[in-house]
Amino acid sequence: MKKVQVLKKSYKDYLQFLEEDDREEMDQLLKKLQGKKIAMINATEFGGGVAEILHSFIPLMQDMGLDIDWWVMHGEKEFFNVTKAFHNCLQGDDACLEQQTIDTFFKYSQLNANKILNWEYDFVVIHDPQPLGLVAWRKAPDISRWIWRCHIDTSTPNLDYWNYLQHYIQQYDAVIFTMEDFVGEGLDAGRLYFITPPIDPLSYKNIPLEKEEAKKIIDRFGIDSNRPLITQISRFDPWKDPLGVIEVYKIVRKEFPSVQLALVGSMASDDPEGWDYLYMALRRAGEDYDIKIVTNFNGVSNLEVNAFQKASDIVLQKSIKEGFGLTVSEALWKGTPVIGGNTGGIRLQIEDGITGYLVDTVEECAEKVLTLLRNPALAEEMAAAGFEKVRKEFLITTNILKYLRLFNDLL
Amino acid sequence: MKKVQVLKKSYKDYLQFLEEDDREEMDQLLKKLQGKKIAMINATEFGGGVAEILHSFIPLMQDMGLDIDWWVMHGEKEFFNVTKAFHNCLQGDDACLEQQTIDTFFKYSQLNANKILNWEYDFVVIHDPQPLGLVAWRKAPDISRWIWRCHIDTSTPNLDYWNYLQHYIQQYDAVIFTMEDFVGEGLDAGRLYFITPPIDPLSYKNIPLEKEEAKKIIDRFGIDSNRPLITQISRFDPWKDPLGVIEVYKIVRKEFPSVQLALVGSMASDDPEGWDYLYMALRRAGEDYDIKIVTNFNGVSNLEVNAFQKASDIVLQKSIKEGFGLTVSEALWKGTPVIGGNTGGIRLQIEDGITGYLVDTVEECAEKVLTLLRNPALAEEMAAAGFEKVRKEFLITTNILKYLRLFNDLL
Repeated sequence: MKKVQVLKKSYKDYLQFLEEDDREEMDQLLKKLQGKKIAMINATEFGGGVAEILHSFIPLMQDMGLDIDWWVMHGEKEFFNVTKAFHNCLQGDDACLEQQTIDTFFKYSQLNANKILNWEYDFVVIHDPQPLGLVAWRKAPDISRWIWRCHIDTSTPNLDYWNYLQHYIQQYDAVIFTMEDFVGEGLDAGRLYFITPPIDPLSYKNIPLEKEEAKKIIDRFGIDSNRPLITQISRFDPWKDPLGVIEVYKIVRKEFPSVQLALVGSMASDDPEGWDYLYMALRRAGEDYDIKIVTNFNGVSNLEVNAFQKASDIVLQKSIKEGFGLTVSEALWKGTPVIGGNTGGIRLQIEDGITGYLVDTVEECAEKVLTLLRNPALAEEMAAAGFEKVRKEFLITTNILKYLRLFNDLL
Repeated sequence: MKKVQVLKKSYKDYLQFLEEDDREEMDQLLKKLQGKKIAMINATEFGGGVAEILHSFIPLMQDMGLDIDWWVMHGEKEFFNVTKAFHNCLQGDDACLEQQTIDTFFKYSQLNANKILNWEYDFVVIHDPQPLGLVAWRKAPDISRWIWRCHIDTSTPNLDYWNYLQHYIQQYDAVIFTMEDFVGEGLDAGRLYFITPPIDPLSYKNIPLEKEEAKKIIDRFGIDSNRPLITQISRFDPWKDPLGVIEVYKIVRKEFPSVQLALVGSMASDDPEGWDYLYMALRRAGEDYDIKIVTNFNGVSNLEVNAFQKASDIVLQKSIKEGFGLTVSEALWKGTPVIGGNTGGIRLQIEDGITGYLVDTVEECAEKVLTLLRNPALAEEMAAAGFEKVRKEFLITTNILKYLRLFNDLL
């Protein structure tokens, strides 16, 4: 395991995002936690939503005076293959749990556990399944509190896997899910908490951009800022349904021939399936260059994502399955209306017809896109309601407050 | 600059590829070069044909008892942007030579030259434009011999750039081009030599594979081994004309509906243009999945390239501009007939109508593909003639012999 050095952030800069009441509550909670030591453990320093959140969460907590460390566990490819299978099976994939899988998981849990034998933390927060097994090496009797934070939609898990992992989950004092729906069948755990993942309003992905500035940034991807733009920002995989999004575009184009679609994704060089799915999207798009398909390999980084979200007329997140759509929060935070798949955490983010639309099919999605393109006033109203919801519920400040409450609760 | 540590190779394994006469000549030349020290310098340790050749050339020369080192120069992104412009402009691209370009080139030449001030090499071979400028720091008077090895087609260079680089080229004792056609206008240089780039018959890209074995390896990319397969292995850029190759396939498919096309390429994560061009090829292919488009990001490595070359009915290298087509030699070495663009070094490799076909247009290329598909006996005959040509002229053994002659010549 390796302790991550994060870039400093100033809590003061974030006070603007808290209501007066919340600030006072936060101060009181912080006082009670003085002298307590906290560790958070996850699997990767960069890549994916969890690492992104921790890069904001950890330095802010530190700047508040808390003694908090972020550790990244060590794993080789064989281990991450196993935990990828865990992830997919916790989401419901059908597969048999092999003895070798169990052995590999145990081997790496043990290997990393060596590091924690002399730990003196008051709270240990474990993110997702990869470091889940470390709990088996907690001291006995142990005065520290162990918390498992599950970011995955485990509402209908593969029971083979779920029952195996339950041996570990039971050893935690508390478990955090994103929402009640995600609590897997027959879970026998300590206290349950529900916390949604946050966005950082001052990160490059979310800092305020003027609409004109945003349009200039995405201009170099060939976007014509005088024509309507629909965007989905997502990995290229079946759960995000990029092919469905292209079908939506094709329906919309019949009535709005000037519409443009942008599919913006982040690719990992070690994920062959991601490339296959990107290629499928490009092939489905064919030589219709009003469909732009761009990734980090074409120069898309956080600021460009920000600009796409700001400059788009509508942002889609047409997921089939989704733990929580950070891109939904991000787009709403920029005042852009969002249409999301009627699934998982997106249902918490979008109140159908009020802060956006929830859709189940390509046809329904196309219909809602048309509704919003035809009614700019309605689109603006929904976006404003969505912004307000994000401000109240989904910013990093609110998220920290919820964690402070939880820690105090477990004192 | 950094000295590259290469994996050992045994010269003895390669004796089989040399004629008796050549072996004797080589022994004599090696005797005369005893005690001489040689340095080769290029820009990258991995990626591209030059690095690939040096990974075979250097260890073989070492195993012959020669004192040869391989150095890779140090450069940052700004430097490689400049040398990429040099490369393109030496091939004829229209662009103005800016003072800043000259300054950056000088800065990195000077930086790397620090390392060579105390060098005691008898021969210094500089590959391509990146390290060209080092020669300005050679000792005066200098007993070592400096040789510039230009792998680029500089037959019609951008004269702004060419005249600037001539200041450096003039300081060399000898210059090697791939062929006489590539000698740029008004070149005022030391002695001229002509040497074609070689392939290594015992590398993973070229070791013998049974056809059945090869078919099994490419099976996982969805190739149906019972149907005809045409393959082009190339970077995705306009000079390699992958879009033209797709058009060729479309014509051929009309008469051979069961034909399959594979476009196999290697992608660099820091080359946005390469990705743009790959995406264009995918879009042109559309949802015709009899066109396979695969890269190193989908699991294509040297062995897979080998298998594609071995298992294909025809290999294309439909280049518009080409210094030398290593893939042409590789395919012919596997007994697969090749159709190449009628340009640059490919003209040395393919004798039209005898060791393959040279083509100028999509239509001509399609016609030749149809000819070969209809006449397996003719295809086999051409492939056999091509194999023989590669065996005699384009293997690493012959290449080493040519260098030994050159070094002796300059003694």
